[in-house]
Amino acid sequence: MIPTKVFHYFDHNATTPVCAEVIAALPELAQSWGNPSSIHWGGRSPKNILRDARKNLADALGVSPLEIVFTSGGSEANNTVLKGVFDYRQTAPFVSAEQAGRTHFMCSEVEHPSVIKTMQHLKALGARVDFIPVNRQGEIDMEFYKAHLSHETALVSVMLANNETGTLFPVKEMARIAHEKGALFHTDAVQAFGKIPLNLQDLGVDFASFSGHKFYSVKGSGFLYSRKGSYLSSLIHGGGQERHRRGGTENTLGIGALGVMAKRLALVADKAKQLEILRDHMESRILSEISEVTLTAGENLRLPNTSSLVVKGADGETMLMSLDIMGYAVSTGAACSSGNPEPSPVLLAMGLSRAEAQNSLRLSLGWDTTREEVDGFVEALKTVVARLRSINNEEEGDSCHV
Amino acid sequence: MIPTKVFHYFDHNATTPVCAEVIAALPELAQSWGNPSSIHWGGRSPKNILRDARKNLADALGVSPLEIVFTSGGSEANNTVLKGVFDYRQTAPFVSAEQAGRTHFMCSEVEHPSVIKTMQHLKALGARVDFIPVNRQGEIDMEFYKAHLSHETALVSVMLANNETGTLFPVKEMARIAHEKGALFHTDAVQAFGKIPLNLQDLGVDFASFSGHKFYSVKGSGFLYSRKGSYLSSLIHGGGQERHRRGGTENTLGIGALGVMAKRLALVADKAKQLEILRDHMESRILSEISEVTLTAGENLRLPNTSSLVVKGADGETMLMSLDIMGYAVSTGAACSSGNPEPSPVLLAMGLSRAEAQNSLRLSLGWDTTREEVDGFVEALKTVVARLRSINNEEEGDSCHV
Repeated sequence: MIPTKVFHYFDHNATTPVCAEVIAALPELAQSWGNPSSIHWGGRSPKNILRDARKNLADALGVSPLEIVFTSGGSEANNTVLKGVFDYRQTAPFVSAEQAGRTHFMCSEVEHPSVIKTMQHLKALGARVDFIPVNRQGEIDMEFYKAHLSHETALVSVMLANNETGTLFPVKEMARIAHEKGALFHTDAVQAFGKIPLNLQDLGVDFASFSGHKFYSVKGSGFLYSRKGSYLSSLIHGGGQERHRRGGTENTLGIGALGVMAKRLALVADKAKQLEILRDHMESRILSEISEVTLTAGENLRLPNTSSLVVKGADGETMLMSLDIMGYAVSTGAACSSGNPEPSPVLLAMGLSRAEAQNSLRLSLGWDTTREEVDGFVEALKTVVARLRSINNEEEGDSCHV
Repeated sequence: MIPTKVFHYFDHNATTPVCAEVIAALPELAQSWGNPSSIHWGGRSPKNILRDARKNLADALGVSPLEIVFTSGGSEANNTVLKGVFDYRQTAPFVSAEQAGRTHFMCSEVEHPSVIKTMQHLKALGARVDFIPVNRQGEIDMEFYKAHLSHETALVSVMLANNETGTLFPVKEMARIAHEKGALFHTDAVQAFGKIPLNLQDLGVDFASFSGHKFYSVKGSGFLYSRKGSYLSSLIHGGGQERHRRGGTENTLGIGALGVMAKRLALVADKAKQLEILRDHMESRILSEISEVTLTAGENLRLPNTSSLVVKGADGETMLMSLDIMGYAVSTGAACSSGNPEPSPVLLAMGLSRAEAQNSLRLSLGWDTTREEVDGFVEALKTVVARLRSINNEEEGDSCHV
């Protein structure tokens, strides 16, 4: 008899399981197949799906429904803001000379590729771009930020929480400083969404990006918070949907699923506390039971579910594959870069050596992670690390005889 | 007892019902919630969904799976091509002087707003854009096309079938002519997809756009055919998905649904014949039983499911609302412009008067439309038109007394 393998998921920053409520809602949402723009009977129920989801999200985040623009996900939202601010200054008919002269953009060195690569693209199109450094603890260099921010700065983009280390950035303070110079502020809130309580009004940003699949909803859906009065060119021009901010027939299935999850945002504060206790338990066991493991950016304010470890003498990719065989899903860096043999650019930007970055493991817990799973994982990791270190030692021993 | 109202859908060009096979597949597709980029167990089944859907679509359209780029829909695909060709020439490091000098773009006057508005945006960014006129029969002005196409033309974009009249454009011939001048050719195939058999290899275009929800699949999914060797900047920069052509975690739910529908593309040829018989039956009854109705672009090669009518003395919006009350869904123009009191720009571009455009009705049949529904619809339309004309006559009579 072949025993059924049990799977344990420790990679919630890559994506999350679709929650049972969303799966249950999908067939009914798909039955509302009309085009929300149709004025006959076919348009009514999909229009209600849009209206309800928009209101639920806006209420949960403390903003107006008119400030929510649905997108295909976080990457589209990030591209929309960066390219939209750049393009608007080039094409809008009533841009003041002062605004048109703002051709400087800034973001941190540890942003998601959808921000870093878009900034590089803007640079190729003629923008001046500065990347704000971070230190070994993942903290942003505020002196660099203040020194380079100017009345030529159009937009600053700094993520709310880093996807690899969980580090929380001082977005509220940074947005305030940007506004003093008349610059707009965007935060990629994809990793923070559903992990810590969020009030966008209080945060004081002009734009924020969100993705459904990082918060137990389906892939291909997300949204952009665009503060009233913040102007952008559309990334997707089209039929006037989303108040002319994003063309394309609305993804009522994905948006309806976001609406289901919006109601669960009220649970986040409690879940965050539970997750932090679980994560701290996991870290304290790992650090006390496995030698020569260090926590990356562990002293910082950070997401309650994320641990980034450097395990001396154990290659991250090999640990990942060994744990995979045992049913544990972890990550060595951003999932979108998986299969890429290069170590994580985020960890390198923080000043870790290539060897340290290559020995890194990211563990990210979720709402359904249990203490038993965490304890099982720690035992599995102990086994894997001991085996890898013993192989390495043997190889080193062998090499003496060569 | 309240009688249950029966609904009849005559608006398949706006969107289509999600087919039963797709609805049945959704919960299982959502269970494959892993990130396709993950290299652990979580990534395997979503990766298979992507691979299978890509292969099914490529096989059905006669191209290579590597030439399929998944998008959030047709509007994104259209924006990707137009902006991507424009941006590539400005930012790619190895663009020849000959290529960089190609700053001229062309499209027909009756393209979808996601093409027209994007062309207007490129114009604002410095491109030279020509809009190719069409005549009263919806035929493209080939003389204008040939006269304006030049060695400065970067890209021509002409739809395969018009969404409002169903007119089929000579895309194969136009692509050949564009290539003679070294220009790239894009076709918006959104309305043709699933309505007529398509072989992209034979069509000879460089790019083609497709949308899932116009072919019985879910909203928020679509794809771009991008011929091998046709270079574009990404519309969405990000984590390297879709071979660095489109960033963002893949919408495995929508893509899996497209894969289900890809298998049904083999049915299109037969369905098209059935639809044409049904549509011709509907048109011949309407034209013979209701006076002063004309068919717009009815002499042309056109989609087998679409009728565009001008009903003298009956306002389109009022007919739509009267038919809606009777359970029949029709359209006066593109659904994305619904609620817009302006008459259809497509019909105006064809040379219809404002009065004719305002008296227009678009009927678009689908795979499940029956002869009984069509006959019921013709009776309903007769009643509505007779009532509106009699009201109009009374009002005209009244006005004599004023």
